[in-house]
Amino acid sequence: MFKVKAFAAHSATSPLTPFGVERRDPGPHDVRIEILYCGVCHSDLHQARNDWSNSLYPMVPGHEIVGRVAEVGAHVTRFNAGDIAAVGCMVDSCRRCEPCEAGLEQYCAEGCTLTYNDRERGSKNLTFGGYSEQIVVEERFVVKVPANLDLKATAPLLCAGITTYSPLRHWKVGPGQSVGIIGLGGLGHMGVKFAKAMGARVTMITTSPEKGKDALRLGADEVLVSRDAEAMARRRGAFDFLLNTIPVGHDLNPYLTLLKTDGAMVLVGALTALEPAPMGHNLIGGRKTVAGSMIGGMAETQEMLDFCGKHNIVSDVEMIRIGEVNEAYERLLKNDVRYRFVIDMASLKAS
Amino acid sequence: MFKVKAFAAHSATSPLTPFGVERRDPGPHDVRIEILYCGVCHSDLHQARNDWSNSLYPMVPGHEIVGRVAEVGAHVTRFNAGDIAAVGCMVDSCRRCEPCEAGLEQYCAEGCTLTYNDRERGSKNLTFGGYSEQIVVEERFVVKVPANLDLKATAPLLCAGITTYSPLRHWKVGPGQSVGIIGLGGLGHMGVKFAKAMGARVTMITTSPEKGKDALRLGADEVLVSRDAEAMARRRGAFDFLLNTIPVGHDLNPYLTLLKTDGAMVLVGALTALEPAPMGHNLIGGRKTVAGSMIGGMAETQEMLDFCGKHNIVSDVEMIRIGEVNEAYERLLKNDVRYRFVIDMASLKAS
Repeated sequence: MFKVKAFAAHSATSPLTPFGVERRDPGPHDVRIEILYCGVCHSDLHQARNDWSNSLYPMVPGHEIVGRVAEVGAHVTRFNAGDIAAVGCMVDSCRRCEPCEAGLEQYCAEGCTLTYNDRERGSKNLTFGGYSEQIVVEERFVVKVPANLDLKATAPLLCAGITTYSPLRHWKVGPGQSVGIIGLGGLGHMGVKFAKAMGARVTMITTSPEKGKDALRLGADEVLVSRDAEAMARRRGAFDFLLNTIPVGHDLNPYLTLLKTDGAMVLVGALTALEPAPMGHNLIGGRKTVAGSMIGGMAETQEMLDFCGKHNIVSDVEMIRIGEVNEAYERLLKNDVRYRFVIDMASLKAS
Repeated sequence: MFKVKAFAAHSATSPLTPFGVERRDPGPHDVRIEILYCGVCHSDLHQARNDWSNSLYPMVPGHEIVGRVAEVGAHVTRFNAGDIAAVGCMVDSCRRCEPCEAGLEQYCAEGCTLTYNDRERGSKNLTFGGYSEQIVVEERFVVKVPANLDLKATAPLLCAGITTYSPLRHWKVGPGQSVGIIGLGGLGHMGVKFAKAMGARVTMITTSPEKGKDALRLGADEVLVSRDAEAMARRRGAFDFLLNTIPVGHDLNPYLTLLKTDGAMVLVGALTALEPAPMGHNLIGGRKTVAGSMIGGMAETQEMLDFCGKHNIVSDVEMIRIGEVNEAYERLLKNDVRYRFVIDMASLKAS
């Protein structure tokens, strides 16, 4: 075991403060990573504050991790010291169940092991995330970062990126399709970039005309303001696919009416309960689908990073120092970020 | 125009009584059919009683129609006088929109024309359904009945049959799959027969252990009693596909937990609003789908009847005389039918 500097929450109401965590010595399949950048996901805030009633303290958040490989175990084959590597939302899974065998570790039948706010498999030891100097992760859950990508803007790809890339791929979004991205935040801005790079016609669907303008800058072909009932009525039945990134409960029905026959809306941001609303009629009349999707498997996460390398896609980020993370959380609550805070971990080393 | 005997509702609260309706003289593309049998669908009752607040009176219900071709227009190519033919829930559509061109007339962008409780296209004339001696329908909306099928038990295939066949086909149910049919009524009993004939392992999911026994007779491999929380927990994550035929609002979540990763539940019976319940979490954790499906297109309706001919599948029916239809409606309200009432239309001729 060895000790590294980190920032941790010690209760739902206390701010994050400096804290030392123990990391395991790398085993034969482990990769030890010196963390360079860590994105700040809205779920970091939810979990630090126990919004989901499942928080384990002390908690070191952070699951959008980019760093440099410092050491590899004897059986590690894909990484060498000095490589740039990344870690996302999971660090382990059972590896035996049907989803794991299919490369869908995120849907592991026994539950995957989360990068933080979880316990190591077969142990009571807590997992600690990326707001720390170093992390030790088994090779299967580490991915490679293409050399051409801006590393600090790459960090958010590990959660916001894969969460939007995976359903766009799974539902085969591509040229000739009309795709709506609902909500412009950390997830939505990646959805616009990916759907556009996949060749679809992309509409940003947002409550805010001002955000809409920014969506055009990000690559959207047009903007649909969801509060404009007339505009919504004009686009009735116009979309093949909708990626719904709204992170709070809401009525799905106004969006379902936008779908063509056989269209699908996929929820990726419903982190709080959906607003209850009857929607059977809107599904049956047009053989429509509502589905959910959660991050992506490890192979697909690598595929996503390679796609980003090829298309030179990264997140739009605002850099902060580790000491600014509590202030960043307050700004997150007001949606005051375009579009992802990323912590420069050099600021932790220096602290 | 010519007049035929029928039974009609004249208001939401009056019983069905004898009534004469005018049918158009067959045009060049029309088929005139002498009706032999007409199934009694639960939606006949809903519409006769204006449960959906869209009823047009006088109303002649009935959209599960089997009869003998009496006359064909000059341009009719697929039918001759004397053929056995059938008509289902639609008698027209725009024929130009994307769904119509794809053979999905039921999802016509302008709305398909229903067999009853609707108006003929471009006219104020009401459409009148199968509780009548004869009907005149354009060839495109008439299907052929395989010679080996029992005609009276064939009538319910035109709604209960296609409504369950279509989603099982569209979601590619087949050998090696575990399929649950939720609810054992007119739709559910057809779902069991079709899913079994398509090669799936079929589980009847019902509130009633007694109904469960009957499902085994119909071909189900096993029964899962949805009120048995332990049994439901044991089958968590066990199903590839669920066909939900429950005709009233209910909480979808207990059923969503039964699905495997990437599993889908398709609603076909949600004729009243779904009980509101947040379900985002149950969709996202396992990339699950909730979709809807409504009857089927004309080509697929023919395919379904041909499949029934090949596998000798018909409905389980209880025959009634037209004068017993009001009593049958009362029994429908109590789910007291196994599994479909069918009117012998000879009783109307004789009345």
